[in-house]
Amino acid sequence: MTRIIGANLPNIPWEDPTDESPVWRYSANPIIKRRPIKNVTRVFNSAVVPFNGKFAGIFRGETNNGIPYLFRGFSDDGINFRFDEKPLKVYLENGEEYEFQYAYDPRVVETEGSFYVIWCDGLEGNPVIGIARTTDFERFEFVSHPLLPYVRNGVFFPKKINGEYVLLSRPSDNGHTPFGDIYSSRSRDLIYWGKHSLIMKSGWEWWQTLKIGAGCAPIETDEGWLLFYHGVSLTCNGYVYSMGAAILDKDDITKVKYRCGNFLLTPEEEYETVGFVSNVVFPCAALCDAESGRIAVYYGGADTVVGLAFTEINRLMDYIKKYSR
Amino acid sequence: MTRIIGANLPNIPWEDPTDESPVWRYSANPIIKRRPIKNVTRVFNSAVVPFNGKFAGIFRGETNNGIPYLFRGFSDDGINFRFDEKPLKVYLENGEEYEFQYAYDPRVVETEGSFYVIWCDGLEGNPVIGIARTTDFERFEFVSHPLLPYVRNGVFFPKKINGEYVLLSRPSDNGHTPFGDIYSSRSRDLIYWGKHSLIMKSGWEWWQTLKIGAGCAPIETDEGWLLFYHGVSLTCNGYVYSMGAAILDKDDITKVKYRCGNFLLTPEEEYETVGFVSNVVFPCAALCDAESGRIAVYYGGADTVVGLAFTEINRLMDYIKKYSR
Amino acid sequence: MTRIIGANLPNIPWEDPTDESPVWRYSANPIIKRRPIKNVTRVFNSAVVPFNGKFAGIFRGETNNGIPYLFRGFSDDGINFRFDEKPLKVYLENGEEYEFQYAYDPRVVETEGSFYVIWCDGLEGNPVIGIARTTDFERFEFVSHPLLPYVRNGVFFPKKINGEYVLLSRPSDNGHTPFGDIYSSRSRDLIYWGKHSLIMKSGWEWWQTLKIGAGCAPIETDEGWLLFYHGVSLTCNGYVYSMGAAILDKDDITKVKYRCGNFLLTPEEEYETVGFVSNVVFPCAALCDAESGRIAVYYGGADTVVGLAFTEINRLMDYIKKYSR
Amino acid sequence: MTRIIGANLPNIPWEDPTDESPVWRYSANPIIKRRPIKNVTRVFNSAVVPFNGKFAGIFRGETNNGIPYLFRGFSDDGINFRFDEKPLKVYLENGEEYEFQYAYDPRVVETEGSFYVIWCDGLEGNPVIGIARTTDFERFEFVSHPLLPYVRNGVFFPKKINGEYVLLSRPSDNGHTPFGDIYSSRSRDLIYWGKHSLIMKSGWEWWQTLKIGAGCAPIETDEGWLLFYHGVSLTCNGYVYSMGAAILDKDDITKVKYRCGNFLLTPEEEYETVGFVSNVVFPCAALCDAESGRIAVYYGGADTVVGLAFTEINRLMDYIKKYSR
Amino acid sequence: MTRIIGANLPNIPWEDPTDESPVWRYSANPIIKRRPIKNVTRVFNSAVVPFNGKFAGIFRGETNNGIPYLFRGFSDDGINFRFDEKPLKVYLENGEEYEFQYAYDPRVVETEGSFYVIWCDGLEGNPVIGIARTTDFERFEFVSHPLLPYVRNGVFFPKKINGEYVLLSRPSDNGHTPFGDIYSSRSRDLIYWGKHSLIMKSGWEWWQTLKIGAGCAPIETDEGWLLFYHGVSLTCNGYVYSMGAAILDKDDITKVKYRCGNFLLTPEEEYETVGFVSNVVFPCAALCDAESGRIAVYYGGADTVVGLAFTEINRLMDYIKKYSR
Amino acid sequence: MTRIIGANLPNIPWEDPTDESPVWRYSANPIIKRRPIKNVTRVFNSAVVPFNGKFAGIFRGETNNGIPYLFRGFSDDGINFRFDEKPLKVYLENGEEYEFQYAYDPRVVETEGSFYVIWCDGLEGNPVIGIARTTDFERFEFVSHPLLPYVRNGVFFPKKINGEYVLLSRPSDNGHTPFGDIYSSRSRDLIYWGKHSLIMKSGWEWWQTLKIGAGCAPIETDEGWLLFYHGVSLTCNGYVYSMGAAILDKDDITKVKYRCGNFLLTPEEEYETVGFVSNVVFPCAALCDAESGRIAVYYGGADTVVGLAFTEINRLMDYIKKYSR
Repeated sequence: MTRIIGANLPNIPWEDPTDESPVWRYSANPIIKRRPIKNVTRVFNSAVVPFNGKFAGIFRGETNNGIPYLFRGFSDDGINFRFDEKPLKVYLENGEEYEFQYAYDPRVVETEGSFYVIWCDGLEGNPVIGIARTTDFERFEFVSHPLLPYVRNGVFFPKKINGEYVLLSRPSDNGHTPFGDIYSSRSRDLIYWGKHSLIMKSGWEWWQTLKIGAGCAPIETDEGWLLFYHGVSLTCNGYVYSMGAAILDKDDITKVKYRCGNFLLTPEEEYETVGFVSNVVFPCAALCDAESGRIAVYYGGADTVVGLAFTEINRLMDYIKKYSR
Repeated sequence: MTRIIGANLPNIPWEDPTDESPVWRYSANPIIKRRPIKNVTRVFNSAVVPFNGKFAGIFRGETNNGIPYLFRGFSDDGINFRFDEKPLKVYLENGEEYEFQYAYDPRVVETEGSFYVIWCDGLEGNPVIGIARTTDFERFEFVSHPLLPYVRNGVFFPKKINGEYVLLSRPSDNGHTPFGDIYSSRSRDLIYWGKHSLIMKSGWEWWQTLKIGAGCAPIETDEGWLLFYHGVSLTCNGYVYSMGAAILDKDDITKVKYRCGNFLLTPEEEYETVGFVSNVVFPCAALCDAESGRIAVYYGGADTVVGLAFTEINRLMDYIKKYSR
Repeated sequence: MTRIIGANLPNIPWEDPTDESPVWRYSANPIIKRRPIKNVTRVFNSAVVPFNGKFAGIFRGETNNGIPYLFRGFSDDGINFRFDEKPLKVYLENGEEYEFQYAYDPRVVETEGSFYVIWCDGLEGNPVIGIARTTDFERFEFVSHPLLPYVRNGVFFPKKINGEYVLLSRPSDNGHTPFGDIYSSRSRDLIYWGKHSLIMKSGWEWWQTLKIGAGCAPIETDEGWLLFYHGVSLTCNGYVYSMGAAILDKDDITKVKYRCGNFLLTPEEEYETVGFVSNVVFPCAALCDAESGRIAVYYGGADTVVGLAFTEINRLMDYIKKYSR
Repeated sequence: MTRIIGANLPNIPWEDPTDESPVWRYSANPIIKRRPIKNVTRVFNSAVVPFNGKFAGIFRGETNNGIPYLFRGFSDDGINFRFDEKPLKVYLENGEEYEFQYAYDPRVVETEGSFYVIWCDGLEGNPVIGIARTTDFERFEFVSHPLLPYVRNGVFFPKKINGEYVLLSRPSDNGHTPFGDIYSSRSRDLIYWGKHSLIMKSGWEWWQTLKIGAGCAPIETDEGWLLFYHGVSLTCNGYVYSMGAAILDKDDITKVKYRCGNFLLTPEEEYETVGFVSNVVFPCAALCDAESGRIAVYYGGADTVVGLAFTEINRLMDYIKKYSR
Repeated sequence: MTRIIGANLPNIPWEDPTDESPVWRYSANPIIKRRPIKNVTRVFNSAVVPFNGKFAGIFRGETNNGIPYLFRGFSDDGINFRFDEKPLKVYLENGEEYEFQYAYDPRVVETEGSFYVIWCDGLEGNPVIGIARTTDFERFEFVSHPLLPYVRNGVFFPKKINGEYVLLSRPSDNGHTPFGDIYSSRSRDLIYWGKHSLIMKSGWEWWQTLKIGAGCAPIETDEGWLLFYHGVSLTCNGYVYSMGAAILDKDDITKVKYRCGNFLLTPEEEYETVGFVSNVVFPCAALCDAESGRIAVYYGGADTVVGLAFTEINRLMDYIKKYSR
Repeated sequence: MTRIIGANLPNIPWEDPTDESPVWRYSANPIIKRRPIKNVTRVFNSAVVPFNGKFAGIFRGETNNGIPYLFRGFSDDGINFRFDEKPLKVYLENGEEYEFQYAYDPRVVETEGSFYVIWCDGLEGNPVIGIARTTDFERFEFVSHPLLPYVRNGVFFPKKINGEYVLLSRPSDNGHTPFGDIYSSRSRDLIYWGKHSLIMKSGWEWWQTLKIGAGCAPIETDEGWLLFYHGVSLTCNGYVYSMGAAILDKDDITKVKYRCGNFLLTPEEEYETVGFVSNVVFPCAALCDAESGRIAVYYGGADTVVGLAFTEINRLMDYIKKYSR
């Protein structure tokens, strides 16, 4: 029996499985469809967290000029969302508004009483990690660009480890990134970062041969940190993004205890196999309820919509261990 | 209020919009489906014009050996077409039949009492613009290859400017062309061409980052020349073709008065996102009715079918200006 | 009138055509859908043969870690298959089990009283042809790696020619192979191979411009050997695989008597145009009934499912000759 | 016996051959070495013509910021040159100075009483042909950009043909151009151009497999137009530029009477094999003396220096014919 | 008059100029030739500092298996060096020897009483910056890997700025890096780094179009920090590395006061144009004498040898300003 | 003490070493310079064998059209060669002359009383191994194309192993081959080949990272078969070819007993670093004298000339063992 360490979330979105899959899709997927906001053509890779008994989220919205920005959304049930019509505003220490060139693939992590938004920011036209902080989902303060370019897919651990914030990220290059592994970096103040370590390399299993990147913030369990991540395969018709999982050691998060050789979710449904970028399943956030062991994963489908998938901690852990290499 | 300058076309294909989109699709799309002609597997990027109170068109038809040729078609309503079973014949000045290696992406423009077909011709295996002329859609005479290779997406202005024919085109390279901008060239006799000018470059907006090319023949309005064009984005799974629009200055067509930063149409429907080349919306022709301000755009979907989209000049101009950069 | 030379197969899967297409799809396609075997996400390019009055086959099954292996299946009707849950086992001469790194795209040919499985094997991470033999579909013996890397798409003629086994294959490189032609090689003992000849090059017709490879084992007719093969086109959004056919001379199989310039099948149905690798029709096996002239072709769709298509020898031969170049 | 048709040039630079080579190098090569002008690091692909009993030329000079401009030079003997310290100035019709972004690979042709400079101009960052005219080598007037991008290596015939100027050029793409053939275009006024024809394609002989481009202005002989051109081979360590020759028919310059399968000069000397771009022999100009049949070719070496090579019309014609394919 | 701020170095290697070049080569170059150490085939990009009245250095030595390591060397005159036969040893905090996979392109900076070696380290096969410290050139202690991969060309400022160490570096990708700009990062403890800023982008001048990277540690002057860096051009035969210079503002080192549009040194001598990687001038270290204003730059030639070049601060500053853009 | 097993060759070309290098160059290199044959611009990768007390060889000669053919040469001393002016003629079994498209990189091996020429042949424009046989260096008979394309660098063992001929080769692709390993194949009759085995992969040492290929025919010693081979490194300015060596087990030639991590020869001399393809050392043949242990290696320099290098068996074996990994 594996136990999630964390808060209870009795109103977590949920649907029982109908077969033995370790992870199963919500039957009413996609929960966010094309053109969900005026002048926004697609909302996909997006992050949802519990907030004030309900749900809040930061969403990647591709405006009708094709440029992505972050949008704020709220929901009562974690499934139906109300969005702002204007992109998220973030403020600098000096009170000025931070000027986005573009922004995408946000994650949101609650830690030490704040919500941190970590996204891929466009700086001088290059991808870098950006960090902002809010406590009320009203005012967002810019924290830092923690790393040099060309790094993407940043996400925090939800609590400090040995007194340090830990940031997962995927260094690569400046284009459609044909390589990438998951690294961790540490900081005491969110400004200066060091002690970088390689966590996992892209793997032999073909679905994760090309590159991998952290997805959701790690979930603490008594067996280790559960990390959902994306793995990418190269076909003669482009990339295929699937979702995998690993368990990191709690005493040393750079040690991978289990890494599931099987994907947990791969593009199969029409909203995953067809869209602006076909064949993409891209997890960015997960909710979990400690008491029931339920987990709900939000993932982008085909760079076009948002889907929801479910799992239960024991069923998942058994599967990860069974197919761990 | 913007006014289209030109003839009335009361029988223009039409359907009222159901939402506020600046351009909306015909609900019975695609109007030309797979295998529309015996031994022709797909008809897509194609050009339709009013003819004798009805409609005529030149169509790109991919025969079952994969090689594209031009086909002639007629329609009473601009929606249902009857096609010839054999590719279009074009005759040289000496009376001989012009021998096509392959031919694709035709545009048809009526000017000075003639219909000009401008297409991408295969010459020594390289892409060049070809021009032919007809007055009756029965006999087509070869006019010239106006430009050197490697140029595609040629289309005329529908009337002479300062006594000269003006040809828009997109010079690029000999393969799947990862770059391309819209240029104009001028001629007094359709044989000798010069005074080349850059009209527009591919743009910062991501849907038109990679390359752009003229679509339909420019439409004259009292505010300038309305140009529908295609813009292309590069994803890790290939190209995405969308439709945009700009307004060129009437006094100096090399001056862009407005250029809409937003696309007007991007692949969203299954007949645009799935096909021989997924994610393609490729406009080649537009009909317009001066009196009502109605415009009907013919576009290729996924290099597989032909779709129809509608707009109205005032709604469109407002949108272009609103999102002009 | 063309006659198939071979056994009768009265229980060949069959459905009458509804139009004049030279080859037509089974209306209940795909016959094998996603997740057909536990822990196998997709079964596609696969080979079926008559066996003991029913049908047996060797199937490419992509396990949930993305790595392909061979799976055995049986069927009463050639349409509904029962699969083993574990990959096929093959034994070396010394009795040890052959260790697969990965294995894909099998063909099965019955000749000289044995069934030969010919597949693309992973050897030191490189693609090579592997050959195994069985008489009972229970025990499979490893025969040889007949050729050096980097060769794929191997298939035998169903009988010896001039006392020699003849192997068709497609030499290319070690990745997603942007070129490839069909060659033949000969052997007296299945171990030593020589007398290599080029059979056909990729062709001018655009659907087979990039590369071609043998599909099903050649079918003997009184007009020559009927070879179904795949041809590949390169679009700006990746490869498109279609099915073509040629007739090889019976006196000299390196002479191509007819080669159909038209494809026989190109991706058109959703199960061919959408999937793990979009736009793939990949024939691997054909059944035929000498008496009726019926032929049933098994082909992979989109690297995701198995489809079935039908033709009749006279209709097919007429078409091949009509469009032969 | 072949006769050069044209003026006598008794003071043509000259040195007798020491072996049987069809073309031989000047023993004091290179005639222009590194850093020939203050703030100009290299002068190479350059054009020299007889002028006022002496010699004048337009030279490609790479300034110390790496950007190429045109420089004017004069010489008494055709070997030792005095250069201006500032780049060439060219004036527009309105009297303003033409603003160069960059300019390279000039040719100079005397025809109809004027000297025409044809060079590769940078327009919006893309390569296009530029044309300017002078009569006194003091004032240069801008004539036109005759063609769309992306075209390079333009050079005129030294007299009108059928009352038309004829321009040779090499259309290709916007980078280091891995392909290119020689085309001709015609004009009556140097502004409008048409009647484009392919003259020669890159050839089977390996030294000219990749691309070819016109070098010197064609030289009229009683056997046809003698065209020196460059041919390029691709090795695993980059491009190798050699010099070849062809004879174009006088009645129809698009007909190639002879084309020498052998190169005439290939990088062999240290000033050709080593430099900014190793292994380049790039002819841009030729002087000839009708009486003696002597020809002197100016060529760039390794994109770093200027060399001089000699030949005699009869020896050369014999060689071209002997190795013509 | 510009003044170098720093120590006097009366025994700086020196040779007077013979022309007006802003930077001139040592006439006895290269000072380190091929095979300078047993089992080391080439020593090139290398760093020299004053040490105990003489000179010490850390050198990139390519052993005979092609793998680069760091080697220690000493010299009385800064020109003739004695090397260790074994690669440099560096010790971890726990006393263990640091295990190098490979190591190259070292810089050495004296600051706060220590010498810091900053090099490009191979970590899991990827390039990252490594930092080590010594006070006596006998024992070297490993400090940190300050940044994530894929970053190269790291070098410190020789003193803290606002109490922080400042590291220049060039983030790029994992291969032969076709792009790269110079960034700065800051730290209080050499372990945690942040406050990253872009200093300079690759530039319009063709010699630095492709990428740029910091060379020598910045030299303090009363006009700003003098930074020698490399700039790279792409030709059809590969990369050309030249040396440039810029002056960074003393109050804000992210502000570029002057940036010389001209290179200071470009491959011209045979030991720069020919070698393992042709056409490379790669500065890694500079000595300077405050009193005389003399500067001596050590640079790698063609990835094969070490050269020495000289300049004088006033002559250099005049030149930088004159050609500053 | 290692002993060469084979014939004595007292007149082997020889020069004593002047330092401790394991292999040293002939001081009068290159022995064959540019333009050694009329209409042949370069002779480089070439094979020499003892013949009738003197020496004979087959040479790669690049004719002046850039196409390579084989040329025959004879020498009294193994250093100065007389060449035929016409390419080598080879006859088919039916008495007809074999028609070469192109031919390069020959090896010659004496075995079973015959001399076998093994070269890279152009077949349908693709590279394949060709084999011919002679006993008198007058008449050469075509034997076979033993393998499918795309295979190069074939060479035999000089005696049968277990009654079978053994051919080493390097399968790769159809262009400038960015990968390649050494494989062996076996045959009883030189027609049919099988039992392919991987001998060695390209290695971690950077000089042989990209690809490797057999050079000279293996030399039998009492410690195993000595194989000289080429290894290739990729730099940002192209490939670098060096020479390495390995010792194969006599009982099982697929077992590598020793493999020297260091190269034995890498491009250092101007005739190796500069030429048609810079930085190439390419061994194709070795002579040896059993009594003295002397070995003379013929190698191509820069795809332009032929060089000679010497070693002695004991010195070499010590070195190989010392640096074996």
